[in-house]
Amino acid sequence: MKSIFGDSVQVCLFGESHSPAMGVVINGLAPGIQLDLDFLDRQLDKRRPKGRISTQRHETDQVRFLSGLFNGRTTGTPLCMVIENSAQKSGDYEKTRHLLRPSHADYTAQLKYLGCQDYRGGGHFSGRLTAPIVAAGAVALQILRSKGVLIGTHIQSLYGIPDSPFSQEEAELERQLDLLDEVAFPVLNPQAGERMRQAVEEAAAEGDSLGGVLETAVLHFPGGIGEPFFCSVESRLSQLLYSIPAVKGVEFGAGFGIAAMKGSDANDEFITDGKTVRTTTSSNGGINGGITNGMPLLFRCAVKPTPSIYKPQQTVDLAAMENAELIIQGRHDPAIIHRARVVADSMTALALLDLCSERFGYLWMGG
Amino acid sequence: MKSIFGDSVQVCLFGESHSPAMGVVINGLAPGIQLDLDFLDRQLDKRRPKGRISTQRHETDQVRFLSGLFNGRTTGTPLCMVIENSAQKSGDYEKTRHLLRPSHADYTAQLKYLGCQDYRGGGHFSGRLTAPIVAAGAVALQILRSKGVLIGTHIQSLYGIPDSPFSQEEAELERQLDLLDEVAFPVLNPQAGERMRQAVEEAAAEGDSLGGVLETAVLHFPGGIGEPFFCSVESRLSQLLYSIPAVKGVEFGAGFGIAAMKGSDANDEFITDGKTVRTTTSSNGGINGGITNGMPLLFRCAVKPTPSIYKPQQTVDLAAMENAELIIQGRHDPAIIHRARVVADSMTALALLDLCSERFGYLWMGG
Amino acid sequence: MKSIFGDSVQVCLFGESHSPAMGVVINGLAPGIQLDLDFLDRQLDKRRPKGRISTQRHETDQVRFLSGLFNGRTTGTPLCMVIENSAQKSGDYEKTRHLLRPSHADYTAQLKYLGCQDYRGGGHFSGRLTAPIVAAGAVALQILRSKGVLIGTHIQSLYGIPDSPFSQEEAELERQLDLLDEVAFPVLNPQAGERMRQAVEEAAAEGDSLGGVLETAVLHFPGGIGEPFFCSVESRLSQLLYSIPAVKGVEFGAGFGIAAMKGSDANDEFITDGKTVRTTTSSNGGINGGITNGMPLLFRCAVKPTPSIYKPQQTVDLAAMENAELIIQGRHDPAIIHRARVVADSMTALALLDLCSERFGYLWMGG
Amino acid sequence: MKSIFGDSVQVCLFGESHSPAMGVVINGLAPGIQLDLDFLDRQLDKRRPKGRISTQRHETDQVRFLSGLFNGRTTGTPLCMVIENSAQKSGDYEKTRHLLRPSHADYTAQLKYLGCQDYRGGGHFSGRLTAPIVAAGAVALQILRSKGVLIGTHIQSLYGIPDSPFSQEEAELERQLDLLDEVAFPVLNPQAGERMRQAVEEAAAEGDSLGGVLETAVLHFPGGIGEPFFCSVESRLSQLLYSIPAVKGVEFGAGFGIAAMKGSDANDEFITDGKTVRTTTSSNGGINGGITNGMPLLFRCAVKPTPSIYKPQQTVDLAAMENAELIIQGRHDPAIIHRARVVADSMTALALLDLCSERFGYLWMGG
Repeated sequence: MKSIFGDSVQVCLFGESHSPAMGVVINGLAPGIQLDLDFLDRQLDKRRPKGRISTQRHETDQVRFLSGLFNGRTTGTPLCMVIENSAQKSGDYEKTRHLLRPSHADYTAQLKYLGCQDYRGGGHFSGRLTAPIVAAGAVALQILRSKGVLIGTHIQSLYGIPDSPFSQEEAELERQLDLLDEVAFPVLNPQAGERMRQAVEEAAAEGDSLGGVLETAVLHFPGGIGEPFFCSVESRLSQLLYSIPAVKGVEFGAGFGIAAMKGSDANDEFITDGKTVRTTTSSNGGINGGITNGMPLLFRCAVKPTPSIYKPQQTVDLAAMENAELIIQGRHDPAIIHRARVVADSMTALALLDLCSERFGYLWMGG
Repeated sequence: MKSIFGDSVQVCLFGESHSPAMGVVINGLAPGIQLDLDFLDRQLDKRRPKGRISTQRHETDQVRFLSGLFNGRTTGTPLCMVIENSAQKSGDYEKTRHLLRPSHADYTAQLKYLGCQDYRGGGHFSGRLTAPIVAAGAVALQILRSKGVLIGTHIQSLYGIPDSPFSQEEAELERQLDLLDEVAFPVLNPQAGERMRQAVEEAAAEGDSLGGVLETAVLHFPGGIGEPFFCSVESRLSQLLYSIPAVKGVEFGAGFGIAAMKGSDANDEFITDGKTVRTTTSSNGGINGGITNGMPLLFRCAVKPTPSIYKPQQTVDLAAMENAELIIQGRHDPAIIHRARVVADSMTALALLDLCSERFGYLWMGG
Repeated sequence: MKSIFGDSVQVCLFGESHSPAMGVVINGLAPGIQLDLDFLDRQLDKRRPKGRISTQRHETDQVRFLSGLFNGRTTGTPLCMVIENSAQKSGDYEKTRHLLRPSHADYTAQLKYLGCQDYRGGGHFSGRLTAPIVAAGAVALQILRSKGVLIGTHIQSLYGIPDSPFSQEEAELERQLDLLDEVAFPVLNPQAGERMRQAVEEAAAEGDSLGGVLETAVLHFPGGIGEPFFCSVESRLSQLLYSIPAVKGVEFGAGFGIAAMKGSDANDEFITDGKTVRTTTSSNGGINGGITNGMPLLFRCAVKPTPSIYKPQQTVDLAAMENAELIIQGRHDPAIIHRARVVADSMTALALLDLCSERFGYLWMGG
Repeated sequence: MKSIFGDSVQVCLFGESHSPAMGVVINGLAPGIQLDLDFLDRQLDKRRPKGRISTQRHETDQVRFLSGLFNGRTTGTPLCMVIENSAQKSGDYEKTRHLLRPSHADYTAQLKYLGCQDYRGGGHFSGRLTAPIVAAGAVALQILRSKGVLIGTHIQSLYGIPDSPFSQEEAELERQLDLLDEVAFPVLNPQAGERMRQAVEEAAAEGDSLGGVLETAVLHFPGGIGEPFFCSVESRLSQLLYSIPAVKGVEFGAGFGIAAMKGSDANDEFITDGKTVRTTTSSNGGINGGITNGMPLLFRCAVKPTPSIYKPQQTVDLAAMENAELIIQGRHDPAIIHRARVVADSMTALALLDLCSERFGYLWMGG
C-alpha cells in the first residue's frame, strides 16, 4: 500500500515540501477521545529546528483539523489533520534541479516518477513530511499513555559519542522517559549532550554533517501483542522506522551485538515471584517469536548524517548527462537526529496502537 | 494482516511443527511460468540440516502442489504448496511443556494464544515453518532470475569471525553470488568458513550455540522500485527479514556504521559515463528515499545464537508458577545461520517480486 | 487482493476442480474455539448433490485440517482445511476444451490466464470451490451462533414460483431459521417446494436448467456494525455474495422494489418501548448508512440458471477461431440454487464475523 | 479497511457535512497525468442541486489540490483534493438532534459512534461526501477515457416511469453515452424525463420523495479483468456502488430477471467473425466468472427515495427514550437520483481503474 500504513488504525500520509499543504488521515480511531492539543503542540515543537545546531528556517507548523473532530473529541470517522506550507519560495530550486544531490532521493525520484515529481525542497521526500507524522503520532501516543504505556527515545550516540544507557530498572527507566519528554536535546547525560552539540557545531563549521543512533524504550506495553510471521512486532516497527528519512539500520535488544554472543549469554532467562514472569536480561528487546513478552521494548535506529552538506560534491547533471560539481546553497541542519527522536516516538506509537487495536478491538482505545 | 504478506504477490503461510502439514499459498503469480522443480529442491536442500554442525534430525521435505499448477506451469490462480509433517513424535513435549525455554516463544505464545497453542516442537513458531517460505521463495527467485536479478547471501561473520566482503565490482560480485549458490556453507572465503565451523563445533561441545551476521546482495535489480513511506524497500525487506526466526537486527548499506560517519564520507556521490548513472560508494545500500537506485542492494541481518542449548538454564514452570531449572533434551542445531541464508534469499525475493509486480503489473513476471 | 477476503478474519481460498486438492486458510481466529465437526459435516452435506434434481456425481468431501487445530480446538494460528479431489477423470475435457461453454468462464479464463488455466471441470471457477467456502463458513457460523446470531437462507422463488416469505416476527423468524437448518430443500412452504422441484424436473427433461432467488435473514446480529463507506455491511456482504458463482443480483430490504416507492412508504419509522429502539418496517433490511441497526438483516441474491444445459448451443471454437455448435456431455445439475443456499449462509457468516472481529477484537469470538 | 478503497489505486475519504472540509486522497496514480480541471468542474456540476426538483441550497464546491499535483500534472505521490465546507450553519441541528430521522443513519451512527458523531447535517453520512468522491472519480474517468473506455449512467426508471433502454449496438450505445455526458437530467428519452420530473414535482408538492433505478454502461473496457473470488468485477463494483448513500440493490446484466429464465434463454451464446469473439446477448452483463469478457458492462442500482420528507413521521426521541413525531424542516431534495448518476459513474471508474492498474501496472495509466 502506497503511503498508507496499518491494518486497524490506518494512517494515510500526503503532501510535498512545497505543495499547498501536507497532512495525514487517521482511520480507525475510537469515538470520544478528547484530543490533548497542548500535547500535540509540544510534540510538534520537539520536531522544530531550534538552537545553534539547527537550520534557521522558521517553521510554524499549525495543525488544522479538517474532519473527524467534533467538540474537541474524535468522532470515530476519519480524522484529517493538515499543515499548510505557507510562504515557501519555489524559485530557488529551478536552477539546481538537474544536479542530483548525493544521498538524497533526487535520482530515485526521477527513476520512479519519470521527471514529474515536485522537486522543490525534496518534494514528497522532504523531512517536512515528518510533521504530519508527528501530529498523527501525538494522537497515538496520547491514547497509549492513557493505557499506561510510556514511549521515549534518546540519542544513544552521535558521531560515536555515547549517552548514558537506559536503565534496566523500571522505576528509573520511567524517570528517564519523563526526563526525555521535557528536554529539547534528548540525552540522559547532559555532559554527553554537550559534547554531542559541540561535535555538531564543529562539523557545521567545516560545512559537514553528523548522524547517530536513536534508542527507544517502551514501558508497560502489554504482552501477547504481535504475530509470528510478517506482522511481528519487529516487522511492524521496522517497517515504520524505516519510513523515517535517513534511517539505515534498525535493531532490537542486543541487536547486531547478539551475533557475537554465545547462546548461554544471549538467552534471556525467566524468573518469577509467583505472580508475574520476567526475563532477567533483555537481549531480545522484550520480543520473542515476534510477540511482546511484557518486558520493556528496546530498539535502536541508525540515523545517517544529513545529506545536505556545504562541501563540494561530485555528482551528475541529469539534463546534460555529464559529471558536475555540486555546491549546496541555503540553510540546512548539520544534524537532525535530535529532531528525529520525536518521529521515532511517533512511528513507534502508530505501529503499537495498530497492533493493540487489532487484538482488543478499536473501542478499547476509547476507554 | 496475520501470516499474510504482500500487496500484489501475496503469500499466506500456515502450519505447525507437528501439525499434519505446513504450507504456503501464493496469490498473484502470472500464468504460464514453468516452475523449475529441480531449483526448488536445491533451495530446500540448502535449508536442510547437514554436516557435523547441524542437528542429526532427518527432514525429507517434499513439496506437494495442491493447486495453481497445471502441466508444470502456473495457472495464475492461487498456488498452494504443502509439506507433510510425517513421523513426528509428539509425546516428548508433554512433560516439559510448562517449562518456558529462554529466548523461545513459549511464553509469548502462552500470552497470545492463552494456552491453546500447539506447543509441540515450537508449533507455529518452529524453524520448520521456514521450509514453506523457502518453497515460496524459490518461485520468486526463479522469476526474478528470469529477469536477470541475482540474489545471494553469505555469512558475513559468525561469533565475530569475519568472511571476506562482497566485491564492489559487479562482475566479481556476480561470480561470488554464483559461488554462494553452489556451496553448502555460504562463505566467500573457505578458510574463514573452516574457522567458523570449528567455532561452532567447540560451542556444541560445550553444549552452547552461536549466531552471526548474514549479508545479502541483490544484483541487476531495476531502479525506481519502492515507495517513499511505509513501503520503502527497506520497510518491505525488513518486514520480511524480521519474520525469519532469530533475526534481531537489519541494516542497509553502511548500516549502524553510518552513525559514526560524517556526511562528506557517508554521501554516495554520483558519476556518469554519459549513458548510465552510478554511485561511487554504497553507504545507502542502493536505496535512496526508500527507492532503488539501480546499484546493487546490500543489507545485513543479525542472527542470534540458537536458543536451544544444553547448558542448564533458569526458567519458570508456568503450571506451578515457580522458578525451575531447564535442561533441554533432544537434538538441536548449535548454529542455524548457514541454513538461514536461503531463508534470507527467499524473503528478499518475495519482497522484491511484490514490489516489481505492483509497478509493472503481474503479467510482467510471465514474459 | 486475489482470492483473499477479510480485514480481521482473513480467508484465503485455493484449488481447482481437478487439482490434487482445494482448500482454505482462515487467519485471525481466536484461540480455544472447540470446532463442532458434526456441524461442519452437516453444512458440507447441505451443499452435496442429492435427490432427483441434482447431478448423480458422487462427492465425498472430507475436510482434513492441516494446521491451526490442536486437540480439537483452534490454536489461533492459521487454520488450513483441505478437501482432496480424489478420483477425478481428466481425459474427458481434452476434446471439448476449445469450445467455449456459454455463460461459463471458459472465455474469460482464456483472456485472463492466457491459455494456462486448468480447464478441466471449470478449474478454479468450478462450483466445487464452494466446498472449502462452506467449510470456512461453518467455522464462522458456529462462532456467530455461540453469540446468539442466527443465519438462514430459503429459496424465495425458483423460476418465478414463490415460497412463503420470512416472518416479520422474531419468534416466528427464529422458528423458520431452525426449520431451514434441518431440511434438504430450503423452503418455508413445502407445497411451494414441491412445485419448484417439479419445475426443475420438467426443465431437466427438456435438457434445460433453472435459477431463482435466495433470501437470507440474520437474526440477533448486534447493531452498530459496519462502516459508512466502502466497508458498509451491504458492501461487504455483496462483495462476498457476488463471489458465489451464478449470482447476478444482490439486494437489501425492499431492494429494487424500493425504487417505485414514495419516501413516506419506504422510510422505516422508529418505535420504542422505553428500553429498545426498533423499526416498524424493514425496507432498509436492517442497515442504515451501511451500519446495522439491530433489526434482522434481510437480503436476496439472484441465482442464474445452471449454465450447463443439454440443448445444442451456438458457440466459438477458439482453436479454429470459428463458429461451432456445442452439445454438453456428462452429468450436470439442472438447478443448483437449493445447494447454493448454504454457500450464501457461509459467505454471510464470513463477512459478518470479520466485521464483528474488527469492532470487538478477535478475542471476542473466543468467549 | 475503514473509508479506504482499492488495492492498486487507493482512495481515502474523509469529512463531515459541517466539518471544516471534506476531501479525498488518491494513492497509486501514475506520474505525469495532465488533469483536466474543466472536466473535473463539469463532473462536480452534474452532482450539484439544480432545477426545480432539487434543493435550493447553494453549494459551490471548489476543489483545492493540497498535494500530488505539480505544474498541472500528477506527481505520482498521493493526490489530496479538499472541498471546504464554508458557511455552514450548525445551530439548526441542535434542537432536533435527539429525534431519529427514519431511514437516515442517525440511529446507527449513535450505536456505532456512541454519541460522539458529528450530527450536524448527517455528519460523515451526508450526501455531501459524494462531492469528493465525484472529484476522485473525475480523475479515474479521465484516465479510463484516455484508454478509450466510456462510462455513463441513465435513470432507467423513476417511481416506475421507464426511460428508453441502452442500445445493444455499440455505435448507438456510444452515442447514448455521449448524450448522457451533456444533459443535466440523465435520460435517453426526453419525454420520459419530462414525466419523471413531473412525478417528482408532484411528490414534492405532497411533501414526499421519490427514488428510482440507475443503469450504467461501460463501453470498450478490456476483457480479462477481475478475479474469480472476492475481487470479481461484480464484487468490486457492488462494494463501491453500495457506498453510494441510498443504494439498496445492485444487479448485473439480466439481474434479478435472470432468476425466472431458463438456462437456454439466460446463456449468452458466443459468435465470432474469425477475429474477435462476442456474445449475442448480455444476460451476464459482460462478466463471466467475475472477469470481463470484452463486451459492454451493464448493471443497475436501486436508489431509494430521499429519506428527508416533510410529512410527519413517527420516531423515537433518544434523549427522552420515548416515541415522538418528527417534522423535518429545511430544504431537501425530493429526489436525488438524477444527481446520483455522476456518483455511480465515479464509483464505477474508481473500481475499474483499480482493477486495470493491478493487471497492467500503474504506469499503464500514464500513457
